[in-house]
Formats: sequence, structure tokens, C-alpha cells
Amino acid sequence: MRWSDMDAYGHVNNVMFLTYVEEARVEMFKTVPWAGGDQAEAGIVVAESAIKYLRPLHHRHAPVPIDVWVTAVGAASFRLQYEVHDEDPLLDADAPAVVYAVASSLMVPYDFGAERPRRLAVAEKDWLAKYLEPTVHR
Amino acid sequence: MRWSDMDAYGHVNNVMFLTYVEEARVEMFKTVPWAGGDQAEAGIVVAESAIKYLRPLHHRHAPVPIDVWVTAVGAASFRLQYEVHDEDPLLDADAPAVVYAVASSLMVPYDFGAERPRRLAVAEKDWLAKYLEPTVHR
Amino acid sequence: MRWSDMDAYGHVNNVMFLTYVEEARVEMFKTVPWAGGDQAEAGIVVAESAIKYLRPLHHRHAPVPIDVWVTAVGAASFRLQYEVHDEDPLLDADAPAVVYAVASSLMVPYDFGAERPRRLAVAEKDWLAKYLEPTVHR
Amino acid sequence: MRWSDMDAYGHVNNVMFLTYVEEARVEMFKTVPWAGGDQAEAGIVVAESAIKYLRPLHHRHAPVPIDVWVTAVGAASFRLQYEVHDEDPLLDADAPAVVYAVASSLMVPYDFGAERPRRLAVAEKDWLAKYLEPTVHR
Repeated sequence: MRWSDMDAYGHVNNVMFLTYVEEARVEMFKTVPWAGGDQAEAGIVVAESAIKYLRPLHHRHAPVPIDVWVTAVGAASFRLQYEVHDEDPLLDADAPAVVYAVASSLMVPYDFGAERPRRLAVAEKDWLAKYLEPTVHR
Repeated sequence: MRWSDMDAYGHVNNVMFLTYVEEARVEMFKTVPWAGGDQAEAGIVVAESAIKYLRPLHHRHAPVPIDVWVTAVGAASFRLQYEVHDEDPLLDADAPAVVYAVASSLMVPYDFGAERPRRLAVAEKDWLAKYLEPTVHR
Repeated sequence: MRWSDMDAYGHVNNVMFLTYVEEARVEMFKTVPWAGGDQAEAGIVVAESAIKYLRPLHHRHAPVPIDVWVTAVGAASFRLQYEVHDEDPLLDADAPAVVYAVASSLMVPYDFGAERPRRLAVAEKDWLAKYLEPTVHR
Repeated sequence: MRWSDMDAYGHVNNVMFLTYVEEARVEMFKTVPWAGGDQAEAGIVVAESAIKYLRPLHHRHAPVPIDVWVTAVGAASFRLQYEVHDEDPLLDADAPAVVYAVASSLMVPYDFGAERPRRLAVAEKDWLAKYLEPTVHR
């Protein structure tokens, strides 16, 4: 988190949550065996985003954890879900204690050379399938 | 639009669209007869946002128009829809020629003094009802 | 100005002034007859920036005017000065009534193809010389 | 660093360096024994900033280190210098191997209650004096 992420209300601006989620996705994507290498990583575009704000988040020096997982894998797209939360101090595995926001995004592989969407390769699908978890509704 | 709104792909970063939408909303909100005056304006919080990206948008010197309208008014919330688009050069009133993104947000009036959501006043509902239009699906 | 330019103190974040100044420069640069055309415009890099904050600036719906002028032209660089201010309501030509910040930047033409700085062309120097004004100290 | 810190040139936008420097300062300031406690921390305003860009910086997953030190302490202000750099891989203590930018800022303690600048307290001066180092010119 950055001090300047806060808005005039003194808490993290709601748009900034999408930047946080983008960072979590970038971090996750660097481990994916993209067909075509690093260039292909750049070719995964966001087709849709949705976010639900549950609690205000204030600036602090400790990072805020974000969980990312895959909720669907299609022929030429996949869907991610994100949860911006603080860890449960009681170590209850079922749910984080404080959830600030949940978000989801529809991701589409895009071939910038050919200027059109492309299908997911088998290795990409296999990797994504490993992180497949149910959608969480809050 | 600002030059720095572009990301490393050379087009407007997808998160930045939510900032554009926020600006359109801020502009609209200054005309609403909020119960409680200007302070109340500050107390309309975003509970949910969703956005669908249809085309990449490049930086340019001319502003990009955004239409905003109300799609639902409830007892203690209302829903807005936004369309980021270029005007139809043929002046076809039915649809803009180029739509970059459509977005929606669920807005909740919040009483910061009492620290809880509040119901919409009649004057607020009446004003919002004047801008009520159907949801557009793209 | 954007609502999100404000920080937790409720006024425009000091870093954001550099973005305002960048916008003023981008606007000015589109009128320069750059050697090499539009691509050359992209090749003017900021080598140094300096800014002095004189008064806090609050978000508002009206834009904040920025004056830009040239204070020096060298063989392979030039210097710009900026003043972020409100117009003098009394139309006193000598000074704007309220100055929020003054800034300056050292600009260097850079040939991205050859990956090295380049000298200013005569037409560029001539254009810049037309906007030459003394440095203002505040 | 965030992916969105990059601009259309594919490297970190020059304005963003000031945000990096702000973060380094915020991190440093939380350890200062401010007269008046945490509220006083909020009351240290930036009066002037200057930055010199030495090399382009590209996005990466590892953080970029920033050194911060005090170069002057006055009655009612102090000056900080910053160096955005990569560590020297040869462990040469004299100088970092790659310096992206050097910056400085003039900081002024401000009493928001009384709405005027204030003098530095003795404990503040003593703390700042411990981090006093010469200005580095690059």
C-alpha cells in the first residue's frame, strides 16, 4: 500500500482496489507457463471486472494480503476471483477474519501480432485447472 | 484524459476507466439536491462496481464522453450505469458509434456522523427518478 | 482535476502537481514542429524536475490554469518553467492573484532508435525561442 | 513497484519516482519522535522537491531500494536527499552500482490546528541530526 492510495476520506480509494487486484494477478501470472513465453503473458487482457466493497481499508505499513484463484476455464478465456482481506488472527482455516473486498475478472488471451483473441493452449489450461476453486459469494 | 493514464501497452490502463467513471459520477452528483447538503454528497459510497471492456482506448487531446444514467432506485441505494464512448459521427441518436466500455455501480448513502447507511430522502429519489433509463446490455 | 487527485489531507497530493505540469507540457508539445515528426515528440525526455509548493490546492470542478514557457535553449536541451495558478480576478497583468506552485524541468531530445541524446534542430530551436521568457523566482 | 507505474514508453513514469520517494519518506517518518505524536507526523509538509533522472527504470517484481538521509536541519525546516538505486553487486560500500534518480525535498513542520508553520522541537532536531550526511551531487 502507498500513502497516496488514500483519498480525501482518509481510506483507500475504491478504484485503487482494482490496482491492488491487478498487482496480485501480475504476481500470479509470472508463474504461468504461457504459450509463447513472456510475450504471451502481456497478451492476457481484462475483458470484464467486478468488485464488491465490504469494509473501508486504511493505509498502513504492513501489506494487505490478496488471495487469487481460478473459478472457470473456457476455450478462449478464464475467470479469476480475488479476496482482499486480513488473515484470521485465530487461524480459522475456513474464512479470513476481515474481508475488505471481493473481485472477479474475465481474462482473455490475445495475440497482439495477429490482433485477435486466441484459444488457451493445453499447458495453460492444465496450469489454470490446478488453481480452480469455487466462486465465493459474500 | 492524461498522458500518464496509458500503461505499457500504449492504451488507457483498464483500472483508469474506473477513475473516468468516478469523474463522470462526481460531475453528476454536484447537481443532486442531496439531503443534508454538500456534506451528504460526500456520504454516497460505492458498494459495488462492474465494468466490461469493449475496445482499447488511446490517449488523445480531446476528452472522451461518458454517459451516466440511473437504472434503479431503492429505499437505501441506487444503481448507475455508464457508457464510455465516442459520439456517433453520423448523429444517429440510437447508439454511439464506438463504445469503449460499459460500467455500473451500486451506490449507498452513508451517514458518516452516525456511521451507518441511511435511507434515501424523497427529494433525492425524485431527482434520481428523472434520470431513470433501462440497463443497456452490450 | 480529478477527485482522486486529493490525498488524505483533503487537498491535491504534491506529487500530482507534477502530473498536472506533465499535462501542460504534453499540450504545449503537440504544437512544436519536432524534427522527425510525432515520433520525435515522444523522444523528449525529462532529465530534471523541480517544484516549489506555495499554497494548498483543493479539488474543484473548474480546471486550474497552468502557464508554461521556455527559460533556456541549449544545443541539446531546453528548460521549461510552469506556474500553477488562478487567474487574477482584477486582470492585473503583472502577476496572477494566487500561485499554487512553480516548477521547472530540463528537457532532453532523445533518439530512441539510436539510443542516445540528440541535438536540437534549427526549426525546434526557433520555435522554442519564440516562447523564451525570464525565469520567475517566487 | 506496480505494473501500472509504467507509462506508454514501457518504463516507470518520471512522476511516479516522486511517489516512490514519498513512500521512502513515509517509512522513515514513522520512526521519528514527532513532537505532538502521530498527528504531528501528518503535519510535515513538502515545501520543495527536486529530482534528477539518471537512467530509465523498468518494472520488475523485486522492489527498488531507496536511501533517504538528512542533509540540513534548520529552525523550522529540514532537507532530505533520496537515491533510487540498485545495490552494488560487487558490495562496494562507496557507491551503488546503478543509480536511477537522485531527489531532494525541503520539509516544513506545520501546525494544522493553528494553521501556520512551527519550529522543530529539540527531540526532532536531535533525531534528524543522527541521519545527517553530506549532499551527494550526481
